[in-house]
Amino acid sequence: MTKDYIAEQMRELQCRITSKLEKIDGKAIFSEDPWERTEGGGGYTRIIKDGSVIEKGGVAFSKVYGPVSDLMKRQLNLDGNHFFATGVSIVLHPKNPFVPIIHMNVRYFELSTGVYWFGGGIDLTPHYVEKTQAKHFHQKLKSICDQYNKEFYSAFKDQADDYFFIPHRNETRGVGGIFYDHINEDNSGLSKEKLFDFAIKLGDSFPEIYAEQVSFGKDKNFTEENIKWRNLRRGRYVEFNLVNDRGTKFGLFSGGRTESILMSLPPLANWEYNLVPSPNTDEYKTIEMLKKSIDWVNG
Amino acid sequence: MTKDYIAEQMRELQCRITSKLEKIDGKAIFSEDPWERTEGGGGYTRIIKDGSVIEKGGVAFSKVYGPVSDLMKRQLNLDGNHFFATGVSIVLHPKNPFVPIIHMNVRYFELSTGVYWFGGGIDLTPHYVEKTQAKHFHQKLKSICDQYNKEFYSAFKDQADDYFFIPHRNETRGVGGIFYDHINEDNSGLSKEKLFDFAIKLGDSFPEIYAEQVSFGKDKNFTEENIKWRNLRRGRYVEFNLVNDRGTKFGLFSGGRTESILMSLPPLANWEYNLVPSPNTDEYKTIEMLKKSIDWVNG
Repeated sequence: MTKDYIAEQMRELQCRITSKLEKIDGKAIFSEDPWERTEGGGGYTRIIKDGSVIEKGGVAFSKVYGPVSDLMKRQLNLDGNHFFATGVSIVLHPKNPFVPIIHMNVRYFELSTGVYWFGGGIDLTPHYVEKTQAKHFHQKLKSICDQYNKEFYSAFKDQADDYFFIPHRNETRGVGGIFYDHINEDNSGLSKEKLFDFAIKLGDSFPEIYAEQVSFGKDKNFTEENIKWRNLRRGRYVEFNLVNDRGTKFGLFSGGRTESILMSLPPLANWEYNLVPSPNTDEYKTIEMLKKSIDWVNG
Repeated sequence: MTKDYIAEQMRELQCRITSKLEKIDGKAIFSEDPWERTEGGGGYTRIIKDGSVIEKGGVAFSKVYGPVSDLMKRQLNLDGNHFFATGVSIVLHPKNPFVPIIHMNVRYFELSTGVYWFGGGIDLTPHYVEKTQAKHFHQKLKSICDQYNKEFYSAFKDQADDYFFIPHRNETRGVGGIFYDHINEDNSGLSKEKLFDFAIKLGDSFPEIYAEQVSFGKDKNFTEENIKWRNLRRGRYVEFNLVNDRGTKFGLFSGGRTESILMSLPPLANWEYNLVPSPNTDEYKTIEMLKKSIDWVNG
């Protein structure tokens, strides 16, 4: 399985996902913005906005390669002279506060030394956390993981709890999901083909997983107060992405394409000084559930 | 001049500034939120919102002290066992897109070794850059600096250009201002008393400087398009503060009080994918002027 084949399949995955997301949205369609990277490679960033469900979102494919810079050596601990990376990332910000923000990424990395690995994950950031919705989400992820390795879900769920965490708020970003990195045939019990298949399977499951989350919330009526809360939660999303997300920081500091990296940022985010929801409100209950180590599947 | 005297004067400065800002706003008043720091000291964060001019803003006083942590040693290159820091910081986000965002900070730092220094600055971030407004702003700063040291303005203006810069956007945050750090009697040609006087003078000039900027813009009519642009520029302000501002990052990573650190973040910020203003629009002209080394005083 060559790296170019993997990249081609990633690009096709992007196309399948955007076409299904357009059906889920029912109104807006994606526009495509191609870009090139001076040092090698480039990508196609697909953007959707002002839909009936999705207010702003992006599904980005990239395939980049070239010499390993000093910054990459330091930040990523790489020891080859050349690297190759390809993948698909998604962030969708819905309009309705009862539909969650969702993020997915599947990626493949290879060095000129022959070392390779896969990484990725899916995580859910509800503006209002609902146990049943979170349970459905985690069950779906578990059932996909279980088809490949019975230990994946639990290990990757813990990694998502740790990764999607905002230390300065002492809050998780949302209800987590799965997150994995640096897996290959030596540490996963699966062949390279199987790991690639897992990445594509996750990607192809994304529209269905999102469709279910959309169906829970999209017809719920919402008030100005719900919008205000949605915008505050979007503010937290911005904080995580700009302060804590290693991928974003690495991209910005290494001269990546800013617009593609920051397509994850929301429309209309808000910050209010020291807002603490009153006990027993849905907002309060949400904050209470933004914690690590909740067993969503069996809880 | 003891450190406690400096802190008392900083606190009084905060009171004078908020009282004048309330008059400038004419509608909203500040509320005060006191907080304590476990390791020593604390502060009073004063917050204003939904005013006739100011949509969201804060004027914070703090006086913190205690052991120098390992993180502080690494990040700040400190060699004493104990530190003491006090100062006043301000960020104001106006409602009217033709009134600029403004920031000020004056601070004093002292180590148990006896080493001390002052730091601070004022910078202006217009949503729409107007040469005349920027010129007035820089002239005022220059005239204050000139009363203390004829070299201050030019040196501190360059430091502001360098500091208030967003590399991943290749834009300055706004039209700059002055920024200085680590000045003391050994490197400034001024006694400690004079440097303290300079800090207080800058602080006391703030309301007047801001009042002038407000008067330029506050009665201008604005459209939905202007609001949209204001929100996008606020998005850039968020990017600078969360990605590039050393003070914010240090505060968040060293366990500072999150709400006081992030009082600088705006209400309603927006991100739009790859928005490039059309040539000859005011938005386009603004971007063209977000560059270092513009001579605003003589330009």
